[in-house]
Amino acid sequence: MKDLGFSTLKYDDGRLIILDQTLLPLEEKYIELKNKEDVWDAIYKLRVRGAPAIGVAAAYGLFVSVRDIDADRAGFDEAFRGIKEYINSSRPTAVNLAWALERMDARLRACPAGMPLGDVKAALLEEARAIHKEDVDSCEAMAENGLSLLESGMGVLTHCNAGMLATTGYGTCLGPLHLGHLRGYDFHVFADETRPLLQGARLTSWELSKSGLDVTLICDNMASSVMKSGRINAVVVGCDRMAANGDGANKIGTSGVAILAKNYGIPFYMYVPTSTIDLNTPTGDDIKIELRDGEEIYRLWYEKPMAPEGIKTFNPAFDVTPAEFITAVVTEKGVVYPPYGENLKKLFE
Amino acid sequence: MKDLGFSTLKYDDGRLIILDQTLLPLEEKYIELKNKEDVWDAIYKLRVRGAPAIGVAAAYGLFVSVRDIDADRAGFDEAFRGIKEYINSSRPTAVNLAWALERMDARLRACPAGMPLGDVKAALLEEARAIHKEDVDSCEAMAENGLSLLESGMGVLTHCNAGMLATTGYGTCLGPLHLGHLRGYDFHVFADETRPLLQGARLTSWELSKSGLDVTLICDNMASSVMKSGRINAVVVGCDRMAANGDGANKIGTSGVAILAKNYGIPFYMYVPTSTIDLNTPTGDDIKIELRDGEEIYRLWYEKPMAPEGIKTFNPAFDVTPAEFITAVVTEKGVVYPPYGENLKKLFE
Repeated sequence: MKDLGFSTLKYDDGRLIILDQTLLPLEEKYIELKNKEDVWDAIYKLRVRGAPAIGVAAAYGLFVSVRDIDADRAGFDEAFRGIKEYINSSRPTAVNLAWALERMDARLRACPAGMPLGDVKAALLEEARAIHKEDVDSCEAMAENGLSLLESGMGVLTHCNAGMLATTGYGTCLGPLHLGHLRGYDFHVFADETRPLLQGARLTSWELSKSGLDVTLICDNMASSVMKSGRINAVVVGCDRMAANGDGANKIGTSGVAILAKNYGIPFYMYVPTSTIDLNTPTGDDIKIELRDGEEIYRLWYEKPMAPEGIKTFNPAFDVTPAEFITAVVTEKGVVYPPYGENLKKLFE
Repeated sequence: MKDLGFSTLKYDDGRLIILDQTLLPLEEKYIELKNKEDVWDAIYKLRVRGAPAIGVAAAYGLFVSVRDIDADRAGFDEAFRGIKEYINSSRPTAVNLAWALERMDARLRACPAGMPLGDVKAALLEEARAIHKEDVDSCEAMAENGLSLLESGMGVLTHCNAGMLATTGYGTCLGPLHLGHLRGYDFHVFADETRPLLQGARLTSWELSKSGLDVTLICDNMASSVMKSGRINAVVVGCDRMAANGDGANKIGTSGVAILAKNYGIPFYMYVPTSTIDLNTPTGDDIKIELRDGEEIYRLWYEKPMAPEGIKTFNPAFDVTPAEFITAVVTEKGVVYPPYGENLKKLFE
């Protein structure tokens, strides 16, 4: 993996350290998450964000929040589950949050009743480390799989940030761009700024610039123009939760990009580690979409409020891209094509 | 017409006064345009904007820039044409700018050689006043025509600002909303914020709130979600230049909204006074699209730059919506349906 001189998340010497992404691109500041409140706040405020990175942060975060608990096993388990639910309440849409917490819980359940508490805690840390390592490996495999769909010279549009900053590895959809760049591919990346929180402007353009890739920043509403101009050969995006039928929830605006891509005949690739596929959710209509504060639209990032005070807003953080608009789903186990209802399930067999 | 307590543009007591729209919604400040530099700057910087309002500002602006010229007729005409070209260079896409200046020139040419210079100047002022009055009347007629396409209770999505602030009357596409509201219609308006210059956030939501209409502000990339949710029954937008085949250039992002509307089966209405129809431009591909400074994307309106310094940007101010995505064109002479190549021409017969 390329070393770009930053680290989205690390667990080092007993400390869980994240890069505070709300301060990018102006400041590269690392903070330690010491307890459940730190972890909840970091996820809710998007200091750490991106479905895979949230999963890893939640796993380590749960561990650091319980490691100092001194109780009998029943007391420990009860405290563990309370903290798990609390951390799980920080954001509803990305399935990796619940998935990682559930894996930690399964590991706890697998620890026999008589096991010394120190060993139970060690097992939990081991599980968090495993989730972390799987994310890194999964990114690497997705980057290889995704690269098979791209050619040097291509123009690639992306929305939000599903890169190194959204995972603990190469990223999901930006992985093949990083990997291809290492191998001498020439890509021309267009990054949607991604309102309201500007992940494209603040994060993707920062990450890709650091990586030496050619990146051009556009406003979200310019995607149609850029596609029409012939500059875009493929769209790549991440995913926060994919339903069993292939409908994929991702950052608000993704469904619009997918509809435009279809209109212009441009392939639309969604990058989805299997940890993000939720076979228990039948379709996109069953995915809970987080609604966030309207201040993000009319005040945040602005020197002065840029809309009348008290204006009504509607601020969904995600939307669902119907499976029909997704050309292929890139996972760490390979590239999946429609019919998704059938083919996604095979990944788990 | 409703009185909302503001005036986009007025010519009063020999003074050309505009509301400086770059300061909205925080400050309602009026400025006088005294000479050609003031006029050029006001149009280029979008202190006055919207195709119809630009036309009226250019007509009066040309008059106030030449009224103090003391020369023989040949000298006056030469100075007039120099100033006309200068003002015409302020923005390229909206046809009303060139159209209004051309009407002023035609009026000058119609003044006989021996006419006293004072009378020539009076004729030019008369022409500017006529352009102004026609805009007011045209807005009123468009509002009536547009209202025939809407029903009380409807949800209406709009992009950018084609309202009272974009004209000297009711507005183009917001006209039927203002008029319907006066008549007791209940509309639920969704305003795209319209990056990078935020005309939807700063202007449309301000104007509609003042008018008492129910308005909800969304980011541009949320349009797909809101449409999918069933809240939108019609899309209304303005136009900066419509080609002879019905392709319409309008604020960047409009083409994307049109493609989404078609995907969700929602009618898309473009409001186009005949002064904005350019039969000399065959198709949208022949319309010059203004490219503006990237600072508008990564710095303007922001307390701190929200993207890495020096990042490459692409910042077209307009895009072209292909005629196939336009359900109907609303003009002051009536509602026009496809085939546009044929039916737009009939408006001028």
